Amino acid sequence: MKSVIDTLDLTVEELDDLISVAEDIIKNPDNYSERCHGKKLATLFFEPSTRTRLSFEAAMYELGGHVLSVAGENVSSTAKGESIADTAKVVSCYADIIAMRHSKEGAAFVAAKNATVPLINAGDGGHCHPTQTLADLLTIHREKGTFNHLTVGLCGDLKYGRTVHSLINALSRYEGINFVLISPEELRLPEYMKTEVIEKAGMHYIEMTSLEDALPQLDILYMTRIQQERFDNKDDYERLKDSYVLTAEKMQSAKSDCSVLHPLPRVNEISVGVDNDPRACYFRQAENGKYMRMALILKLLGDVDTVASDAQYIHGKHCHNPRCITSCEQELEHLFKLSADGKTYRCVYCEEAEQNA
Amino acid sequence: MKSVIDTLDLTVEELDDLISVAEDIIKNPDNYSERCHGKKLATLFFEPSTRTRLSFEAAMYELGGHVLSVAGENVSSTAKGESIADTAKVVSCYADIIAMRHSKEGAAFVAAKNATVPLINAGDGGHCHPTQTLADLLTIHREKGTFNHLTVGLCGDLKYGRTVHSLINALSRYEGINFVLISPEELRLPEYMKTEVIEKAGMHYIEMTSLEDALPQLDILYMTRIQQERFDNKDDYERLKDSYVLTAEKMQSAKSDCSVLHPLPRVNEISVGVDNDPRACYFRQAENGKYMRMALILKLLGDVDTVASDAQYIHGKHCHNPRCITSCEQELEHLFKLSADGKTYRCVYCEEAEQNA
Amino acid sequence: MKSVIDTLDLTVEELDDLISVAEDIIKNPDNYSERCHGKKLATLFFEPSTRTRLSFEAAMYELGGHVLSVAGENVSSTAKGESIADTAKVVSCYADIIAMRHSKEGAAFVAAKNATVPLINAGDGGHCHPTQTLADLLTIHREKGTFNHLTVGLCGDLKYGRTVHSLINALSRYEGINFVLISPEELRLPEYMKTEVIEKAGMHYIEMTSLEDALPQLDILYMTRIQQERFDNKDDYERLKDSYVLTAEKMQSAKSDCSVLHPLPRVNEISVGVDNDPRACYFRQAENGKYMRMALILKLLGDVDTVASDAQYIHGKHCHNPRCITSCEQELEHLFKLSADGKTYRCVYCEEAEQNA
Repeated sequence: MKSVIDTLDLTVEELDDLISVAEDIIKNPDNYSERCHGKKLATLFFEPSTRTRLSFEAAMYELGGHVLSVAGENVSSTAKGESIADTAKVVSCYADIIAMRHSKEGAAFVAAKNATVPLINAGDGGHCHPTQTLADLLTIHREKGTFNHLTVGLCGDLKYGRTVHSLINALSRYEGINFVLISPEELRLPEYMKTEVIEKAGMHYIEMTSLEDALPQLDILYMTRIQQERFDNKDDYERLKDSYVLTAEKMQSAKSDCSVLHPLPRVNEISVGVDNDPRACYFRQAENGKYMRMALILKLLGDVDTVASDAQYIHGKHCHNPRCITSCEQELEHLFKLSADGKTYRCVYCEEAEQNA
Repeated sequence: MKSVIDTLDLTVEELDDLISVAEDIIKNPDNYSERCHGKKLATLFFEPSTRTRLSFEAAMYELGGHVLSVAGENVSSTAKGESIADTAKVVSCYADIIAMRHSKEGAAFVAAKNATVPLINAGDGGHCHPTQTLADLLTIHREKGTFNHLTVGLCGDLKYGRTVHSLINALSRYEGINFVLISPEELRLPEYMKTEVIEKAGMHYIEMTSLEDALPQLDILYMTRIQQERFDNKDDYERLKDSYVLTAEKMQSAKSDCSVLHPLPRVNEISVGVDNDPRACYFRQAENGKYMRMALILKLLGDVDTVASDAQYIHGKHCHNPRCITSCEQELEHLFKLSADGKTYRCVYCEEAEQNA
Repeated sequence: MKSVIDTLDLTVEELDDLISVAEDIIKNPDNYSERCHGKKLATLFFEPSTRTRLSFEAAMYELGGHVLSVAGENVSSTAKGESIADTAKVVSCYADIIAMRHSKEGAAFVAAKNATVPLINAGDGGHCHPTQTLADLLTIHREKGTFNHLTVGLCGDLKYGRTVHSLINALSRYEGINFVLISPEELRLPEYMKTEVIEKAGMHYIEMTSLEDALPQLDILYMTRIQQERFDNKDDYERLKDSYVLTAEKMQSAKSDCSVLHPLPRVNEISVGVDNDPRACYFRQAENGKYMRMALILKLLGDVDTVASDAQYIHGKHCHNPRCITSCEQELEHLFKLSADGKTYRCVYCEEAEQNA
């Protein structure tokens, strides 16, 4: 393990190990308070995300380390036209580990390939956000004691919700998960997630449009925000945004040990009246994110392997996704890999399927 | 003492205790240099105020702690619609204490009610800025050795000047203060400050329009900036802004031990020629702000009591102040309290009197 | 040595001493890791420069100190009209040493005169950027073992290139440097640099327009970026920007021990294909910048002398350079000094020659 771009970069064993380390940190924080003494984490947030940045920085401080902080999009050297690759090389001279957030899909992958220190993807556009998924997983583990045989409701924007896709991917590696997919028609889970991920893993799913109907059977309810920026049409957004609001009243029909998660920030999809319900886990989830980031920083600083070579990739194909880092990074070779289905070629940076293949 | 929103949240005893701690820090800095080892201060500056932010951060570093810094208005999660309440809850997972600045009146109060760690108001719009007043008070105490029996001139914008109102409130709790109120007609101290605060406390005041006439009698001269943003009419600003400029020449008529204070930043209301006069205290005042912030952080981290309950507040009334946090925070209950006069209801967030009561 | 505004503020002895300290830090980093324990560096970046800021901050952390970070132009107190002089005085209450970047020429000089702690110029407009030059010099010394008898090619924008002028000035204090000046006609080295600096020091130079012709004879090739913001005419920029691109192919004609330097960020003036050539020093150069900043911080914190008095300056003349700090700073006296040629008066802030003298 050198860098973490996607949750699936971690094997189930590595993931279980991170969970163990995080749970030990929670029990024995003093054992970890000087582990990164003299080490420096650079938080390169080319796109703002205050919460995620603070969580990484708090994690590093609780390990006794230093933080080099870059917040906001207007990063000066990139404004002058510097490539992500060069930025990663230079920041490697200043920091021992990097957490990077960027608006372009695949940006973290490009940075990780060029950095000479470990790099953690703190979100690359709509593509991956592995430390959010790690926070979700630790929360499930702490609340339920297991990842197996759970009925997991996912509610809200299942079409564009990056965290939802990532959580489904991660849970599908365990046993006996029953997914309840709760969304308006317009925001249903994409077909490939159902066939290539859930069905392939031998898991079950059911699609529903009513949160109230779904609620009584759930062990876990994962709420998500319906983001205005995902809609071309403002009216659609206005009509839908209040459809899936969780209230104290609705919670009366939920199981007594149903755990409510939310990646935050919430707008009004969970009423403030739910906050004091002991089943509401979303603020504990934010804290769990910090502990998983601590575990990840520790692992990456202690256990640095060699970088994956490019040998496995396919050259000569071209990515046409305008949100992909290949659309702007100078002299960046376009690379593809063959999907698990053995038929589709996907860009190694953004994972978009090749067009007209 | 859990959180500090207004200087008047502190009793006279608590205030005197903070002054003692600050003066001990100044004498014995090494005794304090590791007091906050492993602790984290989050500086949440939703509105920029570089000087105040740096003062808080320097304070925390001189106590051996860490800082999580958020600077600039463009805080990403609030841009996505997150409430102040949620932000306070989440940041409580990352930090041991919070200093918050926000453009809305009452924002710090809402945050303090939701944070699970102590919170210091670092300025909430035009409402309160208690650590500035603490800096002013320490400066007076260090220069004069007392808070009693002083003739205190306040010059400039007495109508809108938040620091002026706060200082009058704080000094009115001591004995024998004689206030000299020096301002243009347009910027006179509001009537309620004269009747409800100064007169009620049994203090004296005199209103003057000429700085030169007032100067010879003063033990303390508190200069303030006339801010362009307070004027609807630019011409009024241009006409008035130079009216109350303190120069080396005018200082010749001041007492030999007159102390000149200014909350800074100054524009040109004090000429640079005054800076080297030993009676000019305004840069020492900036340093005193750091020491009072150190004392406050120490007190709040060591001595956390329970939060005040809402039981004392009046429900069912509505605040109409557009600058109040109630105008934008989701699901925030409007709450009022009865003023000391027993007749006026005031919003607990911004302290505006109820309209048409 | 109190503050460093220009590389030439340092004597050759001081410079050699800094190089020695930096080389010792590289060899024995553990000896330095707690040297600045409890000290605070303020990085005041009124103009963004992420790379330089991170380098300073990494330097301070590797010395065990703290950092107070101000990034971005929208610094709130200066937006309210505060002078640089006041900012320097106030920040001196919070920090033990200051690194400042500002868009106005001479801003660092004004700040240094008013700060009560040492100040390092981290770039003042197009005027000086001494720590970049220190990084260049350490790189040359580490790669070549000497500053004497080298053939140094400088390529790109020699007219406006601040780093180029500064490096020529610095190297001209050593022996037997042979400068090869490679640029388009439009961007040739200014006449006064050739006569007042190179020739005066008894060094040689040759001007060339072809990078390929120049390359075989060079011990050092210093590449620079042609910046769009320097051109009034976009077409000129487009026509010229690709003229001086270094490629792996061209590197075949260079000496086996030719060292390629670049102040970074690069856009495309050096092809990515050159990066893995052992002669490419530009990423090592970025790291060297950190070590020289460590050496400089140590020297300035340990060895603070009195400020230079104004006695040596000429009063009564007026600077007309609109980029000079004299154009905006309140109550700032215009001061001039006589140049080494005994004929020209130059502004002490921006070094522009007096007009109509």
